[in-house]
Amino acid sequence: MSAPPHPFGLHRSLDPPGALPQTARRLDATPRALENELAIEVRALSIDSASFRQLRETEASTGEAVRDQIARIVRERGKMQNPVTGSGGMLVGRVREVGPRHPAAGRLAPGDPVASLVSLTLTPLSLDEIRTVHLDTDRVEASGTAILFERTLWARLPGDFPEEVALAVFDVAGAPAAVLRDARPGQTVLVVGTGKAGLLSLAAAREAVGASGRILAVEPSLRSAERARALGFADAVLSVDARDAAAMLEAVQGATEGRLADLVVNVANAAGTEAATILCARDDGAVVFFGMATSFSAAALGAEGLAKPTRLSIGNGFVPGHDETALGLLRRHPALARAFGELASGR
Amino acid sequence: MSAPPHPFGLHRSLDPPGALPQTARRLDATPRALENELAIEVRALSIDSASFRQLRETEASTGEAVRDQIARIVRERGKMQNPVTGSGGMLVGRVREVGPRHPAAGRLAPGDPVASLVSLTLTPLSLDEIRTVHLDTDRVEASGTAILFERTLWARLPGDFPEEVALAVFDVAGAPAAVLRDARPGQTVLVVGTGKAGLLSLAAAREAVGASGRILAVEPSLRSAERARALGFADAVLSVDARDAAAMLEAVQGATEGRLADLVVNVANAAGTEAATILCARDDGAVVFFGMATSFSAAALGAEGLAKPTRLSIGNGFVPGHDETALGLLRRHPALARAFGELASGR
Repeated sequence: MSAPPHPFGLHRSLDPPGALPQTARRLDATPRALENELAIEVRALSIDSASFRQLRETEASTGEAVRDQIARIVRERGKMQNPVTGSGGMLVGRVREVGPRHPAAGRLAPGDPVASLVSLTLTPLSLDEIRTVHLDTDRVEASGTAILFERTLWARLPGDFPEEVALAVFDVAGAPAAVLRDARPGQTVLVVGTGKAGLLSLAAAREAVGASGRILAVEPSLRSAERARALGFADAVLSVDARDAAAMLEAVQGATEGRLADLVVNVANAAGTEAATILCARDDGAVVFFGMATSFSAAALGAEGLAKPTRLSIGNGFVPGHDETALGLLRRHPALARAFGELASGR
Repeated sequence: MSAPPHPFGLHRSLDPPGALPQTARRLDATPRALENELAIEVRALSIDSASFRQLRETEASTGEAVRDQIARIVRERGKMQNPVTGSGGMLVGRVREVGPRHPAAGRLAPGDPVASLVSLTLTPLSLDEIRTVHLDTDRVEASGTAILFERTLWARLPGDFPEEVALAVFDVAGAPAAVLRDARPGQTVLVVGTGKAGLLSLAAAREAVGASGRILAVEPSLRSAERARALGFADAVLSVDARDAAAMLEAVQGATEGRLADLVVNVANAAGTEAATILCARDDGAVVFFGMATSFSAAALGAEGLAKPTRLSIGNGFVPGHDETALGLLRRHPALARAFGELASGR
């Protein structure tokens, strides 16, 4: 008997064989689920915006249509990983086949609507047809089969939210799950940034710290700050730019009578907010960075340079059950769901 | 009377003015102590190894000598912060001047030998002369003046170790302090990289996990691996390159009967080791990254792509008392002190 297929999909890597699928140049996209895999009937791809821009530029310069480029890349690589940008995107579809040893066997059935929560850069994909390329939304309607490995994250698409709202929630679901896990009743939680991840984090913080806790948000955009205030989760939304460490420290000291925050969640999309984030945490507190603009060295050396022994975490996008946890927040807080609907549709 | 100089040194930031010194592109390195500052007569710099590696690569590709690159960076920025890696290093010297309002006034006197315990990335520095660049030890003999702020950490150099040993120990003292704080008796600890931080981490792990615990190291350099083996702290030193995630996972699975590690300490100076580091930790384990080549996004997205809920930490270089903690390890383990003496002198 041969070795069982690898939980991380190393058995699907053809070039070089045995590499992690994301680093492999070419994957085996044979559209049948092995014993621990899922086969997904793809309905649409959401192409990473950097990749999509590059495909459009190539169309302009070479005349090869975006549709034909996507078909060619997937045919050549066995996955939709733009060879120039290196980036992928995500997919939605329906379950076609559940391997008998896949962890979801018994919970998932053919026909269930799902989204893959990992990048297309590591997902075996074969396409039968590309129906429509939506140039305005980076979305591609297509038919084909994707393979999810034993450890590939996926989520069931909910029946009570539009698909774009669900995808937007899944994209940032790690942050509120971390807040619910780490914040304690009575604590002071500071959320840096009030975009989608920030709003979910504020809702999670409100549930976690209870009535005796205190919640602060920091947001430089007046419109975004107003949206956060209207939701009512935060005791105060401070209009300050987290790139200005001195100003932010002063504002947070003022709002906490100098006590600072027990937990600071950074979900800022701007670079350069590390020091302010660390300065606003108590020495015995914790900081978790979810903002993808975070610089590792700025955070590590910043804490040392400020003589702050605060624990610093790299926000892990995966907390078990984070998709349902985040959808639960929207269900319990209808105003939050409405705000997400507006954000997901670009309003 | 004008406002007193800021405890974190904001008054020395020139670009942008009022920024925290670490984020500033340029500092005012005027070599005189203000009322709450220390002026240090610099004798040597110990360059962060990721930075030094980058400087050597630049020398190989452009022909600009490491010495000239350092002189140029310090002249342009008023601090030794590598513009590519963002990292710095540390310095040793003697007290030249103690501001009357500095917290150590009365405890420190001109001539006392001290080391700065914070990064060069936030330390105003002017160099008069670079005497020698030791390519084998990342050490630069130089003359100049550094400024330490009111809150800048410093340490008196010990009498029982050579200066270069003390400096090397202080530079990486955060890693063993974190291991002693986080590792529990009976756990399995994996140390990625057996440079200076790695050797101290292995000694700390041995004390923390006790006889029932298990300690593994991963190191691609045969010579460095042999040195680590000879110290006897690790149960096994695996000769594998952490940039090859599949190979490292296989090696660590083999060495742990598939259980993986409770705590993984990354002190590698090569880039691209994030995925392997995360893969080798248990799902309920913890990873702490001290290697300054760590990419925040590679770690965060890597964990998500691998569906690893493992806690990921940014190693904080400051743990209270970490300087004496690390020196204590050397005092209790004479072979470790000898190895440090060899490493610090480039043997």
